[in-house]
Amino acid sequence: MSSSTEPGGRAVRARVLVFPRREILDPQGKAIHNALSRLDFAGVEEVRAGKAFDIHLRGEDEADLKRQLEEMSQRLLSNPIMEDFQIEILPEGGR
Amino acid sequence: MSSSTEPGGRAVRARVLVFPRREILDPQGKAIHNALSRLDFAGVEEVRAGKAFDIHLRGEDEADLKRQLEEMSQRLLSNPIMEDFQIEILPEGGR
Repeated sequence: MSSSTEPGGRAVRARVLVFPRREILDPQGKAIHNALSRLDFAGVEEVRAGKAFDIHLRGEDEADLKRQLEEMSQRLLSNPIMEDFQIEILPEGGR
Repeated sequence: MSSSTEPGGRAVRARVLVFPRREILDPQGKAIHNALSRLDFAGVEEVRAGKAFDIHLRGEDEADLKRQLEEMSQRLLSNPIMEDFQIEILPEGGR
């Protein structure tokens, strides 16, 4: 079902990571940093908290897959005013 | 401040990803999958929704850094009953 030789093009697993933009406060990351300090993790210097999406996707080819991922990240997965996103296409068999 | 030659050992950026375990339902991922289908992303076969943490951390050496990350993932960043986590130490200068 997710073999890359089926009709319908190439199937991949991709990861989209969404983080608050650098210039935006990240209260969740700050709270986690504070909690880690209380748990005696003294070496922690900064924590940013974001979202991760693991997406199984079929497309014509690499360019089509990247275009789809870019578009869904902008339209649905992130809030482009507040957040940055990164797209990674995972190696086959990877997790 | 985050140079790796300072006293206090080695500083790295790490990423911890937390996803619902395979056998656990992921209603958020399912909702995103449905929303993507309504937006005409017909090639999406599965979506899992999780959390991402970007952590700047100082430790004695690689083994110490990994031990700290493993421990904070188990104790604070994930719920081990419901979630799996993955730890990645990022290459320097990477994002």
